Amino acid sequence: MIPVPKGFRFAASKAAFKREGRYDLAVMLSDTPAVAAGVFTTNRFQAAPVLQCIETLASRERVRGVVANSGQANACTGEQGLVNCRVSLEMAAGAVGVDMDELLPASTGVIGQHIKLDRWRAALPELEGSLGKVGPMEFTRAIMTTDKFPKLAWATIRHNGQVARVLGMAKGAGMICPNMATMLGFIACDADVEPGLWRDMLRQAVERSFNRITVDGDTSTNDCVLALANGASGLRIDPTTEPDGRQALQTALSEVCEALAYMIVQDAEGGTKVVRIHIVGAKDDRQAELAARAVGNSPLVKTALFGRDANWGRIVAAVGRSGAEFNPDYVAMAIGGITIFEGGAPKVGDIDGLLAAHMDQRDISIEVSLGDGPGEYTLLASDLTVEYIKINADYRT
Amino acid sequence: MIPVPKGFRFAASKAAFKREGRYDLAVMLSDTPAVAAGVFTTNRFQAAPVLQCIETLASRERVRGVVANSGQANACTGEQGLVNCRVSLEMAAGAVGVDMDELLPASTGVIGQHIKLDRWRAALPELEGSLGKVGPMEFTRAIMTTDKFPKLAWATIRHNGQVARVLGMAKGAGMICPNMATMLGFIACDADVEPGLWRDMLRQAVERSFNRITVDGDTSTNDCVLALANGASGLRIDPTTEPDGRQALQTALSEVCEALAYMIVQDAEGGTKVVRIHIVGAKDDRQAELAARAVGNSPLVKTALFGRDANWGRIVAAVGRSGAEFNPDYVAMAIGGITIFEGGAPKVGDIDGLLAAHMDQRDISIEVSLGDGPGEYTLLASDLTVEYIKINADYRT
Repeated sequence: MIPVPKGFRFAASKAAFKREGRYDLAVMLSDTPAVAAGVFTTNRFQAAPVLQCIETLASRERVRGVVANSGQANACTGEQGLVNCRVSLEMAAGAVGVDMDELLPASTGVIGQHIKLDRWRAALPELEGSLGKVGPMEFTRAIMTTDKFPKLAWATIRHNGQVARVLGMAKGAGMICPNMATMLGFIACDADVEPGLWRDMLRQAVERSFNRITVDGDTSTNDCVLALANGASGLRIDPTTEPDGRQALQTALSEVCEALAYMIVQDAEGGTKVVRIHIVGAKDDRQAELAARAVGNSPLVKTALFGRDANWGRIVAAVGRSGAEFNPDYVAMAIGGITIFEGGAPKVGDIDGLLAAHMDQRDISIEVSLGDGPGEYTLLASDLTVEYIKINADYRT
Repeated sequence: MIPVPKGFRFAASKAAFKREGRYDLAVMLSDTPAVAAGVFTTNRFQAAPVLQCIETLASRERVRGVVANSGQANACTGEQGLVNCRVSLEMAAGAVGVDMDELLPASTGVIGQHIKLDRWRAALPELEGSLGKVGPMEFTRAIMTTDKFPKLAWATIRHNGQVARVLGMAKGAGMICPNMATMLGFIACDADVEPGLWRDMLRQAVERSFNRITVDGDTSTNDCVLALANGASGLRIDPTTEPDGRQALQTALSEVCEALAYMIVQDAEGGTKVVRIHIVGAKDDRQAELAARAVGNSPLVKTALFGRDANWGRIVAAVGRSGAEFNPDYVAMAIGGITIFEGGAPKVGDIDGLLAAHMDQRDISIEVSLGDGPGEYTLLASDLTVEYIKINADYRT
């Protein structure tokens, strides 16, 4: 049983945007206006729903909910795409009884394809009828594309004898390298929190989670995380007088985002591994990030992981070309906790034998020390597999 | 019959660095001291032979030749690697009758593996006996690793009634994203050219060729291009009084490098396509390069090319996340010469039908205009295939 924050209801319908018989249009609705925060893709081509959300959040602190569809991304669709976004938004808002500017839209699917308005309209009765009768699982299923499983996570905050909840839902398996943005993610919370504080908390949570994963280094045009807090729990988080409460909510929000981010990498298209790349000892965090991303996005490192090959040479080569500043003589690298490279040369003999067991695991750990600086960064990455190629040579993003 | 520049001879032997019966150790020798130029990897981990070449070229304008091996890269091998490089260099120099500091070393193969000195020593008689009896083809075969075919190119310069030649040999199929460096490349020229000018010419030729290709975005630890000009043709290129001659030599050198660079992409591991990405209208060349590299290294774009899928949305998304500055509304994109995206939306209806024939070709053309700026950049890239994954999940770089 998934714990739903108080005052939130869900609706979902099958509009056949891609194929019959699967949820692909859904709404998350708060009974009362909820404090809203959003983080969006940094891709220069922002999809129509992203532009609409940014416009709405610029003028409103609170909204009633979000509407999301899979099948068509409504990205790179020009003026017509923006018009279609507003028309579909108005239809969905009407179905659940709110104004269109109280609803934030999100779309995922094929870039360049227009929203199928006729199918959207035909799905409205089912959407309206399902409100309150379906839950987060149906909502999450409705936003899946190449995802193999729905991604949900939650946390509970206990503070001053009161209880509040955070519920997160996300989708994503390919075109994943959020890098200062993120995939589709939706967060519901029933704490009572001040708008500016909630936006700061979401930015911080996203920076520590979705922004630190990569599947293929490709940042989508539709990435966004929308977070609503409606206060229905009565648990009030006061930014000035409640440092403990603020910390409790921040921790809960970050944990939910980190869990969803991990699930996205675990569900990476064709992926068989989740590798945690931890860079330490860099001059600063930015230098550590450069090194981590070079390793996490290296096709040679990723294919070696798929081959269960402790190919440390490719990792070292990726760090070397990353652009990070460091002295090669002071670099040390450990895989699965075993230091295998130090002082510019291999440190142990039978590396393959030592690491064979670790390389067979689903979760691989790579730690690289670039020196004695304070900079560190952690990136979660998937491997690169035959299945990834087959999926993306066929599937139309 | 490959036209060899005057005064150059070759030697090759089978040292079984990887397996029996194939050339893997070779020398290119000039009868007289030749003006030498080198361009090297920008990877922070530079292999022992790269460090040795840089040291030699810092103190000498002329050398007698180069010695190259495949099988072991002698990269990330620490102090021992540098010692082994010098020992093997001394052995090879002795076999062809020159001093060790007159020979420039280059190695390619598995990172982290030491040169097998015993096999190197055992191969010396064959190396010595073959001097002048083998040619550029045997030399080129000796430096192949995952290459499917040897890569040679040549050009002839006619100036002031005299004739000079440029011959280039290269290897490379994976771990290719030279980016300010290049793969193993060797150039022989019998023009008589001043050392500083020759080094400038090589830098310019490499910048326009090897530095503008990518297979997998991974820059190797051993990349280098070494160019020798021995003047044996008698054709003197005077930098001050001979602008025409200088231009003729620069053109010949650049053409040879561009031909070899194209062959490397054509031989990309598992590759089925060579895509020419041409970015125009950018604010400056750097902005154009950012966009070109984002497209050329995008796994989603590369797998779509493998799938013969005119998936323009992925190309647009890659340009959008490239970091290049531009106004999305002014972007136009053509594939195979047909403009399919303009003003933020698709420009034609049946894109797949229009481009089907072009997508079936080996050579694909993508042209993106970012606006009306003067910046432009051209990048040659391969596609990403099931075969690439299989090769790199098994082969140990």
